[in-house]
Amino acid sequence: MINFLFHMPTRIIFGPGKLKELGTTTYLPGKKALLVISAGGSMVTHGYMQLVQTLLAQNDAESVVFDKIQANPVLEHVTEGAALAREERCDFIIGLGGGSSIDSAKAIALMANNPGNYWDYMPSGTGGRQVPPKPALPVVAIPTTAGTGTEADPWTVITREQTKEKIGWGNDSTYPALSIVDPRLTLTVPPRVTAMTGMDAFFHAVEAYLSHARQPTSDLLAQQSVSLITSFLPQVVQDGSRIEARTMLSWASTAAGVCESLSSCISHHSMEHALSAYHPEIPHGAGLVMISVPYFRYLTRYVPDRMVDLAYFMGVEMESIPAKDQPFAFVGALEKLIHDVGLSDLKLSDYGVHRDEMATLAANSMETMGGLYNLTPTQMNLRVVTEIFEEAYS
Amino acid sequence: MINFLFHMPTRIIFGPGKLKELGTTTYLPGKKALLVISAGGSMVTHGYMQLVQTLLAQNDAESVVFDKIQANPVLEHVTEGAALAREERCDFIIGLGGGSSIDSAKAIALMANNPGNYWDYMPSGTGGRQVPPKPALPVVAIPTTAGTGTEADPWTVITREQTKEKIGWGNDSTYPALSIVDPRLTLTVPPRVTAMTGMDAFFHAVEAYLSHARQPTSDLLAQQSVSLITSFLPQVVQDGSRIEARTMLSWASTAAGVCESLSSCISHHSMEHALSAYHPEIPHGAGLVMISVPYFRYLTRYVPDRMVDLAYFMGVEMESIPAKDQPFAFVGALEKLIHDVGLSDLKLSDYGVHRDEMATLAANSMETMGGLYNLTPTQMNLRVVTEIFEEAYS
Repeated sequence: MINFLFHMPTRIIFGPGKLKELGTTTYLPGKKALLVISAGGSMVTHGYMQLVQTLLAQNDAESVVFDKIQANPVLEHVTEGAALAREERCDFIIGLGGGSSIDSAKAIALMANNPGNYWDYMPSGTGGRQVPPKPALPVVAIPTTAGTGTEADPWTVITREQTKEKIGWGNDSTYPALSIVDPRLTLTVPPRVTAMTGMDAFFHAVEAYLSHARQPTSDLLAQQSVSLITSFLPQVVQDGSRIEARTMLSWASTAAGVCESLSSCISHHSMEHALSAYHPEIPHGAGLVMISVPYFRYLTRYVPDRMVDLAYFMGVEMESIPAKDQPFAFVGALEKLIHDVGLSDLKLSDYGVHRDEMATLAANSMETMGGLYNLTPTQMNLRVVTEIFEEAYS
Repeated sequence: MINFLFHMPTRIIFGPGKLKELGTTTYLPGKKALLVISAGGSMVTHGYMQLVQTLLAQNDAESVVFDKIQANPVLEHVTEGAALAREERCDFIIGLGGGSSIDSAKAIALMANNPGNYWDYMPSGTGGRQVPPKPALPVVAIPTTAGTGTEADPWTVITREQTKEKIGWGNDSTYPALSIVDPRLTLTVPPRVTAMTGMDAFFHAVEAYLSHARQPTSDLLAQQSVSLITSFLPQVVQDGSRIEARTMLSWASTAAGVCESLSSCISHHSMEHALSAYHPEIPHGAGLVMISVPYFRYLTRYVPDRMVDLAYFMGVEMESIPAKDQPFAFVGALEKLIHDVGLSDLKLSDYGVHRDEMATLAANSMETMGGLYNLTPTQMNLRVVTEIFEEAYS
């Protein structure tokens, strides 16, 4: 029986060239923004930071830049960004860039308006499990990659380096008030990052389709997202200048973000968080890809019908496959997609991961992100999770 | 190129038996509700009013009942309900019932918090075209029919009898804060009302699929809604006790409501509004059915591909139909559906409509609901609209 909660309150302005609406929209949620960008410098190099500041000024809003965010964003910068936002009396926070900048913007928005340390409010691991007394300041998300979907969900993923915990969290106040998804901003993303972020979006859709939390709308959007990424991601990795294909990927990513709000990720994401908590040099999308084949092969027997659906939406011609093998067609198609986007060379050992870490990673994933295990279509114990890590390593 | 605004902030709790969450939810937007129900008495007869009041009391909320709403709700009762809400110091408004009660709740919520008359804020016809200085009070929607979708959109349709204007209006504050869609509440709806309300939902989906305002998510939800209604509405009209089928129809209606938020209705709805503004005894769904065949036949040539899609999602086997005839398969399938739900006997003349009214109705539809003509896939002038009314009459 259908049974669900539908809630995704973010206002999303989507389309090539739509960034300019930042200069005219009546939905700007404040007058002075903390503009959160990565430490890498690409937002300045490509002129996106200056453009956003100009558009804000057109719309009578001031901005202060905070440019320290790392690829796997850390607690220290949340604290520092929130202090700056308070000091500068910012009344809203803009995340401009990939998921790390937008997620940091959400966490900073929470801490700019609440006492204590961000980790006081984390509900798992070494988190203090407190409920924030006040909502986050309003957030505006402006993604420049097609991957995380954070523009359409409340989630923010922050790492506490000291205890090697990478935890996803969010509440009603961390849905962006406004997201502007302009696929033109993704034209500057290099092929390898395009591939990794695109695979992140792919897994959001796949996981939301398998999760216990799924509902009709997330199913439909996940199916579309899986189809679009399978079709367009290999093309865009080959030739990143095609705005039509980039637009399809931006929509696939945002649609998968909506899936993360209406349904949820599953333990595949918990496992990746453990991996990049211990090895922050692993890009999130790469971590997911390296675990994915043994992970989804393990799940196949528990959700065979859903796996057949996923293979179908990836364009596999199911008629030629014996019925008993059809559920496994998804993992085959996944391996082909990873190859077609140029990521079949990824290896855990190349990132400095050692064979003897597997049990530690498995335990970490269950402690810090145990909630997603409850939404996974079968119960997974420590031994099973360790074995999947081991298979991914070999 | 994909290009859209996505915004549907309502929190929807959906599922059979979910009404009981009204007694425990932490998302109740106030402490004292005006409970808006119809004048017909069915909410009391079925015990729904008492149940809602008991659940509110469990959740520490008071309620005051306003029970004057007509099938086609009128301005006078908006004014009266808003006065009662102010007098009783209600801080939120609940609409319990069909679309008329929920729409009235939205309009009352606006006027409980704003000066003047509701018509001062109507942006067409004889409306005053003012912008309301304040938002509406928060609205909770509890539908007991599967049809209007008003639980998932900001729209409220109110008739000003004096000038024979039936106008749809809404703003960000008239999205329900919370909607509880419990398909069990629809078990008491008699077959003919089930058929008419179900067809209303069907047309919301169809029109959203044809509208210039469509976007990927509304397309997917409209396709699903059209399929579900075609499959389940005839079954439920035959046997209204099947909760599984009722649940599918409730979801189809809510999904079509989301379509009205993300996309829009088109001039088919403008034409029906004119009809029931002059003849308020015509149920909205019946009015739509009576106009629909000539209306969609006229549109077919302008959007042939979309019409083929709609026929496909209605389950028409397209392979057996010559390519040039395929677009017209939708109108054929629509005629069959109207027959299968027992509504092929509907006649405008039975409702007291006269042949010489057609030009008046056409002009009224363009004056009061002209906005939807701009979102219709082809330009329609007064002559064309009059001819469609004439064809519907004959």
